[in-house]
Amino acid sequence: MIVTVTPNPALDVTYRVPRLRPGAVHRVSEVRERAGGKGVNVARVLSRLGEPVTVTGLCGGPTGSRLRTELAGAGLVDELVEALPDVRRTLVVHGDDGVTTSLWEPGQAPEDPYAAARRLTDRVQLLLARGATAVVVSGSLPPGVEANLPAQLAGLAAAAGVPVVVDADGAPLAHAVAAGTAVVTPNREELSRLGDHPVGEPAQVYRAVRAVRAQGAPAVVATMGADGMVAVTPAGGWRAVPPVPVTGNPTGAGDAAVAALARALAGAGDPAAVDWPEALRDAVALSAAAVACPVAGEVALEHYRRWRSAVLVEPLPAAD
Amino acid sequence: MIVTVTPNPALDVTYRVPRLRPGAVHRVSEVRERAGGKGVNVARVLSRLGEPVTVTGLCGGPTGSRLRTELAGAGLVDELVEALPDVRRTLVVHGDDGVTTSLWEPGQAPEDPYAAARRLTDRVQLLLARGATAVVVSGSLPPGVEANLPAQLAGLAAAAGVPVVVDADGAPLAHAVAAGTAVVTPNREELSRLGDHPVGEPAQVYRAVRAVRAQGAPAVVATMGADGMVAVTPAGGWRAVPPVPVTGNPTGAGDAAVAALARALAGAGDPAAVDWPEALRDAVALSAAAVACPVAGEVALEHYRRWRSAVLVEPLPAAD
Repeated sequence: MIVTVTPNPALDVTYRVPRLRPGAVHRVSEVRERAGGKGVNVARVLSRLGEPVTVTGLCGGPTGSRLRTELAGAGLVDELVEALPDVRRTLVVHGDDGVTTSLWEPGQAPEDPYAAARRLTDRVQLLLARGATAVVVSGSLPPGVEANLPAQLAGLAAAAGVPVVVDADGAPLAHAVAAGTAVVTPNREELSRLGDHPVGEPAQVYRAVRAVRAQGAPAVVATMGADGMVAVTPAGGWRAVPPVPVTGNPTGAGDAAVAALARALAGAGDPAAVDWPEALRDAVALSAAAVACPVAGEVALEHYRRWRSAVLVEPLPAAD
Repeated sequence: MIVTVTPNPALDVTYRVPRLRPGAVHRVSEVRERAGGKGVNVARVLSRLGEPVTVTGLCGGPTGSRLRTELAGAGLVDELVEALPDVRRTLVVHGDDGVTTSLWEPGQAPEDPYAAARRLTDRVQLLLARGATAVVVSGSLPPGVEANLPAQLAGLAAAAGVPVVVDADGAPLAHAVAAGTAVVTPNREELSRLGDHPVGEPAQVYRAVRAVRAQGAPAVVATMGADGMVAVTPAGGWRAVPPVPVTGNPTGAGDAAVAALARALAGAGDPAAVDWPEALRDAVALSAAAVACPVAGEVALEHYRRWRSAVLVEPLPAAD
């Protein structure tokens, strides 16, 4: 099975209102709750594709209980570690006017962040011993947890001969790149922060991706939304472009791409053995199918199947 | 002790953001939670004034547990009845730009609304037997609960010789007025809905209040925000005006007024025995002291004491 690690999960809460107006009192017509956080969304997509998947990460508190209840209801295998005082909420307010506003609560620090990180690495070690075929570490860390946790988890997987994807930002991403064991999937903003200079056009992205790979990552796949993806891998560089412009909900598009890459890595067993053009085709089509769905973690499978063969994958030159 | 009944309580959640912008993603810098609902706010004010008070109403679910934990932390006696699947949240987003936006979740219906209402009336009966000196029924009802519940509760109190205040809106207010046992405290909007015609100027309010009292309520006290209050009571009619214009947070001003009236009724034992000019002075000063406080259910006691003697109370003519 594929293991997704969400160190800082969230309960995604959705409100529906006619129109959000600052300063006004709104009666919410509909409230929905579901388990969230990037790794949970990756697991949902994998599950939707029929891949056996296990969710781990940190959890805890009354909001954590709601999250776990919802995960169970969605049929996802739950190996979360109870170590947070509570789980944060991410509130999304949908207006009937089509405007979506998000309010993200800050995560809560574990009482003992070192113990929490150790218990999570122990749990991942256990899941590796149980036959994990790939590990995905996604999203932010709770306050107080050391930035090198994703790199540590990637090291554990690598030591067990299991491929790993880290989808992170800032210092955790930099640590993971430097550790040299994880495929990383930055978007343009994350690439900019990593290199400390702006990254915009695909040509700039390609240069930045090669620079990141030179720092140690076995493969780097940059996600560029509607502009597709740029990848530098052991087998060469590629750009993959969506077949049609897709409008909709971009939340979760990156998580769908990570799910596709994790599935490819799990199948190949090693970044060097992946059929990268096929993996990128999959990632771009699945990402577009997520944009076509209003809820993060869901994909429109019929769109995915239709778009998959139409994704354009072109090799990139070995140097500028 | 004074008993406050909150049939549809809420967990008040407060978010702080730099500025709420529809369509944007906001990282919330601060999250606060506290027990809410109008009856809970009345109880908080009474407790702040040193009055023994007991909180009852309907509760339940994980959000209800958080509410009860917070009540206990605030030192309020909790006699809530577990009969709701969960308690709603009322979210208030405070912008650093001074703009406050509210999002109120809908209440959840009890699985068996009749049983829930019966269990609540039983609990109030028990609290009356334990020596309640006044009963306050405040706020909305959960979906499915019959609109005559506040009137029923008022009837129980009246049968026990205990004075009662009902602070409600719409059909529950109309039922309470018709039952003829409860002092009612409508604001202008509630008065308008009750009489089915707009109510604006104090003279219109006075006419409307007299019409409501003619329908049966022993006393009617209309709250008009910065314009003060208009009361028609067994001892005559009065208008009470705040000593200074107070700006701030109007949420909870009505609850503070209800707390003052409940205290006066508890002291006198009967609406006919209340020193109404004194009670109104108290209600207006306490209400202004609540506006001066940023959090519902809190009052600035030093302002209350300073303003109390400066409230202007003038008798109103027996007829127009």
